[in-house]
Amino acid sequence: MRKFFEYNWHVRDDWFEWCKQLSKEELNKKRCGGVESILHTLFHITEVEYSWLRGIQGKEDIQFEFCNYATLEKVQLISDELRDENAKFLYSNFDMNKMVSVPWDKAKYTIDEILHHIVAHEIHHIGQLSVWARELNLAPIQAHFIGRRIDILSENK
Amino acid sequence: MRKFFEYNWHVRDDWFEWCKQLSKEELNKKRCGGVESILHTLFHITEVEYSWLRGIQGKEDIQFEFCNYATLEKVQLISDELRDENAKFLYSNFDMNKMVSVPWDKAKYTIDEILHHIVAHEIHHIGQLSVWARELNLAPIQAHFIGRRIDILSENK
Repeated sequence: MRKFFEYNWHVRDDWFEWCKQLSKEELNKKRCGGVESILHTLFHITEVEYSWLRGIQGKEDIQFEFCNYATLEKVQLISDELRDENAKFLYSNFDMNKMVSVPWDKAKYTIDEILHHIVAHEIHHIGQLSVWARELNLAPIQAHFIGRRIDILSENK
Repeated sequence: MRKFFEYNWHVRDDWFEWCKQLSKEELNKKRCGGVESILHTLFHITEVEYSWLRGIQGKEDIQFEFCNYATLEKVQLISDELRDENAKFLYSNFDMNKMVSVPWDKAKYTIDEILHHIVAHEIHHIGQLSVWARELNLAPIQAHFIGRRIDILSENK
């Protein structure tokens, strides 16, 4: 499962770099589908990952409002910051079959289910970015898992 | 990893049902991004999953041409048929760390890497469908992993 998180972080970082060619207007432009803008998508996947991972750990939910992070630099910064905390948990030892509950959901889930959920959530939204990129006549970031040299942790830590 | 395959199959089947509301023209209409049509996307993820899973097993590559499957019924049928073979392998015992090569790629990969690749590939393309659905003013299939009652095998077998 950790490999999928590393993949998602790697792809997300590539998208942050990709976004540097776009104006603020294009980054924030309302588009069709998903959470309706490129920048909001990158913020959303960052925030959702963090919230679920804190929820798994029984930590208090922290609300992030997009309006406070609506520049590429701020979204990339918060992604980097929260990833450190996320990685500490993901590389720790925990019981995947432990049932947990989170503040925004009445049901209980295993940690394993929630990790699957987070992973699929991000890949799905990245697929949306790829369509919007083509609408801008730009090549999207390649989504291939194979062929990526994923060494996020050795790069950043 | 099997849970991700079951998730993908469940979501794919939901999309097949969703597609029944569309005309042949809409299913085959050229769109922006990915493999450029809704039906071709569903064919593509089916075909790619099958090819890689056969490749892992050292089986001969079978080429499927979209032009021979360009109706919803045919794509759904081939998806169902190939899934049976895929499931037999995925629910068998194999060594995830085994290095394998496939006919269309010079590099060698572990089975684990290839399974990650297949899973991410499908979720990514499904994200593209969700944008195209919104462009049609239709609600896309929910991508949530959590909350899906995934019992593909007990339903179909």
